[in-house]
Amino acid sequence: MTSFAIIGTGAVGGFYGARLHRAGRDVHFLLHGDYEHVRAHGLRIDSKEGDFTLPTVQAYRDASAMPACDVVIVALKTCANTILPKILPQVTRPGSCVVLLQNGLGAETYVSSIVPECHILGGLSFLCSNKVGPGHIHHLDYGRIALGHYRPGGKPGGTTEQMRSIAAHFEAANIPISLIDDLTLARWMKLVWNIPFNGLTVALNTTTDRLIRNPDTLDLARALMQEVVAGAAALGRTIPNAFVEKMISDTVGMAPYRPSMKLDYDLGRPMETDSIYAEPLRQAEAAGVTLPRTRALCQILKFMEQQRASS
Amino acid sequence: MTSFAIIGTGAVGGFYGARLHRAGRDVHFLLHGDYEHVRAHGLRIDSKEGDFTLPTVQAYRDASAMPACDVVIVALKTCANTILPKILPQVTRPGSCVVLLQNGLGAETYVSSIVPECHILGGLSFLCSNKVGPGHIHHLDYGRIALGHYRPGGKPGGTTEQMRSIAAHFEAANIPISLIDDLTLARWMKLVWNIPFNGLTVALNTTTDRLIRNPDTLDLARALMQEVVAGAAALGRTIPNAFVEKMISDTVGMAPYRPSMKLDYDLGRPMETDSIYAEPLRQAEAAGVTLPRTRALCQILKFMEQQRASS
Repeated sequence: MTSFAIIGTGAVGGFYGARLHRAGRDVHFLLHGDYEHVRAHGLRIDSKEGDFTLPTVQAYRDASAMPACDVVIVALKTCANTILPKILPQVTRPGSCVVLLQNGLGAETYVSSIVPECHILGGLSFLCSNKVGPGHIHHLDYGRIALGHYRPGGKPGGTTEQMRSIAAHFEAANIPISLIDDLTLARWMKLVWNIPFNGLTVALNTTTDRLIRNPDTLDLARALMQEVVAGAAALGRTIPNAFVEKMISDTVGMAPYRPSMKLDYDLGRPMETDSIYAEPLRQAEAAGVTLPRTRALCQILKFMEQQRASS
Repeated sequence: MTSFAIIGTGAVGGFYGARLHRAGRDVHFLLHGDYEHVRAHGLRIDSKEGDFTLPTVQAYRDASAMPACDVVIVALKTCANTILPKILPQVTRPGSCVVLLQNGLGAETYVSSIVPECHILGGLSFLCSNKVGPGHIHHLDYGRIALGHYRPGGKPGGTTEQMRSIAAHFEAANIPISLIDDLTLARWMKLVWNIPFNGLTVALNTTTDRLIRNPDTLDLARALMQEVVAGAAALGRTIPNAFVEKMISDTVGMAPYRPSMKLDYDLGRPMETDSIYAEPLRQAEAAGVTLPRTRALCQILKFMEQQRASS
């Protein structure tokens, strides 16, 4: 029976892990602050697709107590990835799949250096959920995953038998999943939305609807998106301009929204500045293009974070 | 006897006008909110160069009551320049000199269209003063003026007999003054400091010392300065890179400072976004260069101003 480890049992990892468990899979949850509560009371998911509770789950406080699993789902914020060198060697064996359900760029390369004998998959999660209490997750909407194989240098990874197997497990758990050939392209396409709206909602203490209704910040958001397209192009990936316009029009149609980085900032948590901004800038600049607005926004965010840390 | 009109009797116009009056010049002050007070009590200047009061000054509430003057000093915020078409025709005659002691770009061209038979001079004021009460100005430091002749298209204007005459009056009032050949170059050089530090202190709710000590915002400030240099270059003006580094090192040596735009924002007053950002961007773009960080900062400021207005 395929075994799953969930590293980071929060809004994302907790939701997917609970759905896999409910579908009968062998799931092992690594927890930190919620360990005692989940050990005693299990997990609770409130969802528009059906509420459910799992009174007893395989919960761990320490990765060294976990078995090596076939599939390891990393759903930490990227700012916490520095703990992975202590965890991943404990929960993998050669040939395990490590699935990084994370934002931005750079995590796959980092993780492949920690567990070079594992298959590294990148996952893009289109999920709207919040952790509302210990072991208690509120699933608001969506949930689709796109999964791609990481190859050194970010080359298109194709689709493997293991990926199809993982996809089948997720589908059994009623999670829509698509397999993608080119993880690098998919990650840059997600940045087209993330780079303008994560940073600008933080820098301007606002929500997406206000940014998109104001002609100045609409123009700035579009210019940031076009910089992301230019960065992708420098890496040989073509993102059509129609995709930029679709991201704009999708955002026009959204309810007022605080992206994850804005939530992190408001809650005093670290922001994913490095994976969403600094690493894409590094890759684009190594490929010979500068993204001046993106760099300025990154610098503004780093200043805000440093001021908060020193206050 | 040479007559002077002061349009905008605030921290800048009030200080220079009072010094000219003290030096025996015929000075006419246009006032708005402070009119009654100044009519009754005159002007008071607290200054490290010597406190003084002028119990009786020629104060006016309405420009139509003022005489046409030889020299008209406009010391309004540029956001208030829309009132000039009602004022300048009242206080000038053909051949009058209009001196614009204002920030940013574009005011000379605008004013020359209002009073085409006047000589238009641009003044850069290096003055640290605040209005602390009605008719009461606190002069903290500096005071030097640089004066240049405006020519259509921003061409170097040379030095005229009238400029030398005005300079002699200011020197008699103990105001250091230099005559400059190329007003366009001088205005762009002042923007090298104004564009990064006015906008970033507003956007990041901070002071110059914090921006200059943080490596990210120091880098951003330098990049903004280099964009200003590129804008000037597109208009045929060379600002040496050593000047950028001098502006950086001067700022490192300054006490914590809120630039004028930050004061305006904090006091709920309009910001000079148009003259300090939008007009330089228009001129640079018309000459074929984009200044992406400067444009982004301008858009951020306009968003902040619009949000404040609508709240």
